[in-house]
Amino acid sequence: MDIKREIENMARSAKLASPAMANLSSTSKNEALLAMAEAIEEKAEDIKSKNRTDLKEAKEASLTPALIDRLTLNDKRISAMAKGLREIAELPDPIGEVIEEKVRPNGLKIKKIRVPLGVIAIIYESRPNVTCDAAGLCFKAGNAVILRGGSEAINSNKIIAKVLQEAAYSSGIPQGAIQFVETTEREAVFHLIKMDEFIDVVIPRGGEEMIRNIRANATVPVISHGKGVCHTYVDRDADLGMAEKICFNAKVQRPGVCNAMETLLVHKDIVGEFLPGMIKKFEEAKVEIRGDEKTKSIVPHIKNASEEDWSTEYLDLILSVKVVDSLSEAIDHINRYGTMHSEAIVTRDEDAARRFLNEVDASSVFWNASTRFTDGGEFGMGAEIGISTQKLHARGPMGVRELTSAKFLIFGNGQIRE
Amino acid sequence: MDIKREIENMARSAKLASPAMANLSSTSKNEALLAMAEAIEEKAEDIKSKNRTDLKEAKEASLTPALIDRLTLNDKRISAMAKGLREIAELPDPIGEVIEEKVRPNGLKIKKIRVPLGVIAIIYESRPNVTCDAAGLCFKAGNAVILRGGSEAINSNKIIAKVLQEAAYSSGIPQGAIQFVETTEREAVFHLIKMDEFIDVVIPRGGEEMIRNIRANATVPVISHGKGVCHTYVDRDADLGMAEKICFNAKVQRPGVCNAMETLLVHKDIVGEFLPGMIKKFEEAKVEIRGDEKTKSIVPHIKNASEEDWSTEYLDLILSVKVVDSLSEAIDHINRYGTMHSEAIVTRDEDAARRFLNEVDASSVFWNASTRFTDGGEFGMGAEIGISTQKLHARGPMGVRELTSAKFLIFGNGQIRE
Repeated sequence: MDIKREIENMARSAKLASPAMANLSSTSKNEALLAMAEAIEEKAEDIKSKNRTDLKEAKEASLTPALIDRLTLNDKRISAMAKGLREIAELPDPIGEVIEEKVRPNGLKIKKIRVPLGVIAIIYESRPNVTCDAAGLCFKAGNAVILRGGSEAINSNKIIAKVLQEAAYSSGIPQGAIQFVETTEREAVFHLIKMDEFIDVVIPRGGEEMIRNIRANATVPVISHGKGVCHTYVDRDADLGMAEKICFNAKVQRPGVCNAMETLLVHKDIVGEFLPGMIKKFEEAKVEIRGDEKTKSIVPHIKNASEEDWSTEYLDLILSVKVVDSLSEAIDHINRYGTMHSEAIVTRDEDAARRFLNEVDASSVFWNASTRFTDGGEFGMGAEIGISTQKLHARGPMGVRELTSAKFLIFGNGQIRE
Repeated sequence: MDIKREIENMARSAKLASPAMANLSSTSKNEALLAMAEAIEEKAEDIKSKNRTDLKEAKEASLTPALIDRLTLNDKRISAMAKGLREIAELPDPIGEVIEEKVRPNGLKIKKIRVPLGVIAIIYESRPNVTCDAAGLCFKAGNAVILRGGSEAINSNKIIAKVLQEAAYSSGIPQGAIQFVETTEREAVFHLIKMDEFIDVVIPRGGEEMIRNIRANATVPVISHGKGVCHTYVDRDADLGMAEKICFNAKVQRPGVCNAMETLLVHKDIVGEFLPGMIKKFEEAKVEIRGDEKTKSIVPHIKNASEEDWSTEYLDLILSVKVVDSLSEAIDHINRYGTMHSEAIVTRDEDAARRFLNEVDASSVFWNASTRFTDGGEFGMGAEIGISTQKLHARGPMGVRELTSAKFLIFGNGQIRE
């Protein structure tokens, strides 16, 4: 079948399912989520078998070990998917929540309530567990969902989607509410992001180029889950012991994720006391350091940082280091090279901290804590579908509530406008 | 100068002004708004003189009387602009508002606060007062603004922008915070909507084609202020006297606006009792009626409604009328042909009303009141920058608060992630 028509049929089916999705009771949604969790566990062997096909092809195509790791599903990861769905079932249902309520002088009663977005398309790469997490989250917020995963995980994604669909539909969920794009042709994405007649929002999760392409071509509104070039600024008045712990954690605890630190900024007054020990600790953990001239004047053996380093998301055991003359210089550097993701200051000086929190333009700004905490779970929102690095609609970790819209209900008794 | 470079310079200047804008106190912002109001009144003669140039050209170009009316600035309209700015000064300042606050088990204190969006571009047509209203609203929410008005109002817009800039900058507002696109070349819009490096959101206010073009080409996130094909459904159990008043108001009180009724849906059981009198009343008010077959079987002399009528926003004294067999048919018709703007049901049956409020997918759904009430002022939000017909970020009337984003501030004492 022609790809455009195939995508249009899927989008139309999702749209048709969305009014019934919006009106499901919390109980029905939660029962379906639990049935989906059970089905994922029951079909674990089938899922692993299809995953082996993807892994075989990935090895033949010589994908990197990091990518192959992300692609791999084992019993533990399959259990985690099921557990994720059960946790989503436990979350409060945002739909119907009264956001605001007022009575106007003319007697009109106005209620602003939370409603689903409608149809959400998720475009993602390698990790097959996203198929399950994204479906569960969209679903809990009463949305129909269209899933488009990476071609390298196609067999794993296909079976996960099928297992979820069967479990959901046999629990009374409207047919069509979970759509999975089976074709791996790139053209499919191009059509998907233009179906604004049927789709209310597209959430791309992936590399910078993918997101830029989607933004440039979409007519459907986009929420970007962009890259994280995150900084930690160690101020003149920092508790240096605390600073060392925080910086080490932000870089080393899980370097491959978007909230890991990529650049360390250090105030010039504490460079001599702080940097040699800190860099030694990083080097013991096999972190490659790239410093500016002032950093090199203290720790001469490290590599030079180039202009490009300041805007690079390494996602790896690499760190750029820059010495700054002032808090202002730190803030300016971050607002220039950062990606509005997660930024931290370590200081005992409350005025400096307040200024940093206030002037740094990012979704999440930390005072005396690791940037690694930017996460739906850590922020007490439950599971997340991603971390928005844009300012519209949602900023920072996006949980179930961020997958909703609002609606005004107005109760009158014959009011007309004069 | 090359247009792309001109637009880029403006966008960069706005971006550079935005951190200082974000940190202005409420007092400074309000003082500047009052100074802007005063300047508009002081320069009324100059504004009217430039407006006469636009009007002369509009008449030479044979623009429609409706367009020329929208373009016209007189003393009353200029006073209204100044009054609008003073009202915006009176509104509560949304910036810094704590949206949510919690302490996590690990001791991290998380505060979600309201911050400006940053840089907002507004693209609008004919009415020059938008220059003033939009600047005031963006400004109150701590945003820098880039204004691009219609070419037919260029002289009026230019002087209004200049008056606002001078008054704002001499009240201590950061230079560059109010930008006005002087070139009338269409190319300017094309560049503007791709400046995502500098601009956080673009709000187009205008015709369907303009919005579609912007959506298709923008890389900056868009909030559409789309058209309103609004319906009133008169249910079997309606109070017919109330229904007549509400329908008449929704169509006739101000037919040229987006929340006016374009289609009347009537339940088949009350057609004989309701329609002849209602249509007579409309015809006395010079409303042209276009009915479906069932309507014509009751009131034979009216015109036929074509398929196209159901999705037409007349913005004029024209009304399409359709008889429906059931509440379900009314809801289906609205969800198919409506534009998610404003929809109303007139009924005494609470169950029918609840179902309508629940299942109709629109920004504002009314029970026993006129659709004409969809408006920031009427909803108690103060002035509005438009009415969003999309589901992302803002839905329905958009006031000052809808021109903001959020930011997480996280207060720790050395927390690291395990």
